Amino acid sequence: MKAEIIAVGTELLLGQIVNTNAQFLAQALAELGVDVYYQTVVGDNEARIRQAIETARGRADLLVFTGGLGPTMDDLTRDALASYLGRKIVLHEPTMRKIEAMFAGREAAFVESNRRQAMLIEGAVPLRNDTGLAVGNALSADGTHYLLLPGPPREMKPMFENDGSAWLRKLLGETNVLHSVVLKFSGIGESALEEILIDLIREQTDPTIAPYAKEGEVAIRVSTKAADAEEAARRMEPTLQEIRRRTDRYLYAEEDIALEAAVVRLLAQQRRTVSLAESCTGGMIAAMLTTVPGSADVFAGGVVSYSNAVKHKQLGVPQELLEGPDAPGAVSAETAKAMAEGMLAAADTDLAVSVTGVAGPASAEGKPVGLVFVGLAERGRPTKVERLQLSGDREGIRLRASKRALYLLWLTLTGRG
Amino acid sequence: MKAEIIAVGTELLLGQIVNTNAQFLAQALAELGVDVYYQTVVGDNEARIRQAIETARGRADLLVFTGGLGPTMDDLTRDALASYLGRKIVLHEPTMRKIEAMFAGREAAFVESNRRQAMLIEGAVPLRNDTGLAVGNALSADGTHYLLLPGPPREMKPMFENDGSAWLRKLLGETNVLHSVVLKFSGIGESALEEILIDLIREQTDPTIAPYAKEGEVAIRVSTKAADAEEAARRMEPTLQEIRRRTDRYLYAEEDIALEAAVVRLLAQQRRTVSLAESCTGGMIAAMLTTVPGSADVFAGGVVSYSNAVKHKQLGVPQELLEGPDAPGAVSAETAKAMAEGMLAAADTDLAVSVTGVAGPASAEGKPVGLVFVGLAERGRPTKVERLQLSGDREGIRLRASKRALYLLWLTLTGRG
Repeated sequence: MKAEIIAVGTELLLGQIVNTNAQFLAQALAELGVDVYYQTVVGDNEARIRQAIETARGRADLLVFTGGLGPTMDDLTRDALASYLGRKIVLHEPTMRKIEAMFAGREAAFVESNRRQAMLIEGAVPLRNDTGLAVGNALSADGTHYLLLPGPPREMKPMFENDGSAWLRKLLGETNVLHSVVLKFSGIGESALEEILIDLIREQTDPTIAPYAKEGEVAIRVSTKAADAEEAARRMEPTLQEIRRRTDRYLYAEEDIALEAAVVRLLAQQRRTVSLAESCTGGMIAAMLTTVPGSADVFAGGVVSYSNAVKHKQLGVPQELLEGPDAPGAVSAETAKAMAEGMLAAADTDLAVSVTGVAGPASAEGKPVGLVFVGLAERGRPTKVERLQLSGDREGIRLRASKRALYLLWLTLTGRG
Repeated sequence: MKAEIIAVGTELLLGQIVNTNAQFLAQALAELGVDVYYQTVVGDNEARIRQAIETARGRADLLVFTGGLGPTMDDLTRDALASYLGRKIVLHEPTMRKIEAMFAGREAAFVESNRRQAMLIEGAVPLRNDTGLAVGNALSADGTHYLLLPGPPREMKPMFENDGSAWLRKLLGETNVLHSVVLKFSGIGESALEEILIDLIREQTDPTIAPYAKEGEVAIRVSTKAADAEEAARRMEPTLQEIRRRTDRYLYAEEDIALEAAVVRLLAQQRRTVSLAESCTGGMIAAMLTTVPGSADVFAGGVVSYSNAVKHKQLGVPQELLEGPDAPGAVSAETAKAMAEGMLAAADTDLAVSVTGVAGPASAEGKPVGLVFVGLAERGRPTKVERLQLSGDREGIRLRASKRALYLLWLTLTGRG
């Protein structure tokens, strides 16, 4: 089956928004084994939408539309296709009742145009909209299949993932569904991870293993087609075991969560607390940790010791470490150790992590940009210090230093340290 | 003139990347007064590219291509158009010399396929590539105009902005160029700002004033067409003055910089220092400030006082404020004041900002999610405290509280406080 994705919306033609729907649908259709040869964007103009349908019909079997199902006179996708096919538009009662119920609970008056969102092309299957009002349409006519989805991604994605893909799978005679597990890694780069798993990535066809690109994170996705989740889990388990065996020191979650969420979860399970002494990361690690709901139970707080005065006064770092001709300086293993230990004592937590380094753009204390020390103090144990030489610009170095500090904390909490 | 944007690349059809080029070009063409009625995406397949050209020629005067100019056998845009037009491909000597020079300075051997990047369709104007190797092509044939740009945005954008748009403006008989100023605002929402400026936005045609959507920020763009920057500045000045007059308390920059950058700049100019005591924002403000290069000179550091113990021990907040049946609690004006004053004393800075609140998802101390107090202590002046009731989810509340704290600091630094 060949598909064409048609996005309807003048806001796309004016460049006011990016067509992320096309990417989502392209990926989803590829997973279902449907080839996409063309994507088209057309404005809110009935004649041009009809022309786009005519062109697409000549080169595809399935036309997937996004946009143009809303209440306004500019929402024309349904009307254009109905008139192209010579079909009537009919009211979908359940959607109409949902719209009326929504307005009944509000101050705003029901506007007649809202009725448009409950309209179906005659003979179309309605597609449920769990996150909005406009009902989706799925229909086949003269050997061509049509899927009409709303424009807002938060309505389009769930509609496609639920009723839309179910309708398509039926069309394709496909009873199996794609099941995936996302594995998240830290402490290892994308290419190094790929090297460890290269034979599985290259040779294994079921389940498949593929890198899963996420900004600043390393992840892979293990996928298989199965009738249900149980069968999928059974089929994936041997592969997951092999991956776990090879990547033990790096695999921090078998679901799509951030490293900081995994760390907060471990701290909560172990009823332990942590505090942070941050210099070059400037509060970034604290901001990451406190993104996680429930972090207040395990994260006591921290000190952003940007100046030497704060390092000394709030963390008790000795002046002779920080200043003087023979002092190791603020960016040193000694200072990282003193910061972590000072923080542990000041906040009275079970663990304390410190970071000091040169984020750039200029070097400092005659030390190169990217030099970073991470300290980890633990009650009743010797303090650990790691020396890093990170690459990238200021933000990249700060981000990598933050993630590395969280990774060291994760290693310690899981007994891998 | 009607244009069609044609992106060539199988990676787009597979959903591996988002077509951000289309948005950029759509905006740029709209600014030049060129209407875009369709956008198309087609894969790396010569027959289908030719078909896309044929379709587009029937409905547009200008075809703007992105992608398919690279060295590999999959880069087919130039070949497809040449064969469609029945023209030869010729070598562009300057580009060839540039490619050879680049390889001369490297370990990597020159690969013959790199020659492809120096190829021009016969009769085409070469478009300079300052950030890559492939030369762009611009040509007119049988009343249709063609612009061939590279796929990588970092090559495509500068090529379009330099040689590409110059070629187009000549085609359009346009000697004036669009000049814009971005104005950044804080302390006011998008719709409230629009209300203040509604008559200018609606009625004024030169310069034009338009909202400029940026995630989590409020900005507008003032634009005019002029032969040079000086003429543009002269034409924009009366409008800018009127906007400054109406939005004095909110307009923090007349360039596209973040609020934290404006704050760091003011502190540096005034040779003053600041420290931060953050509770619910958890280090987010510190992380924002330290994003700005040079922040080390004005930002001494801070305390992330997530727990009451840290608030007491590191900031000296009295226990009787924090705990007890009649205590105002951690989320209170009294605690915000004590945090700011404690931080000012501990870090010995000129200013100190504090934030304490309920970020959610659960309420705390019987106080509602979104209740936030911001304190601002200044040496020799009474401490200010602002009470906020913010809406949104956990991250939204934290972000808005952070920006509001920076806004209060900005008000104080500019004497508007």
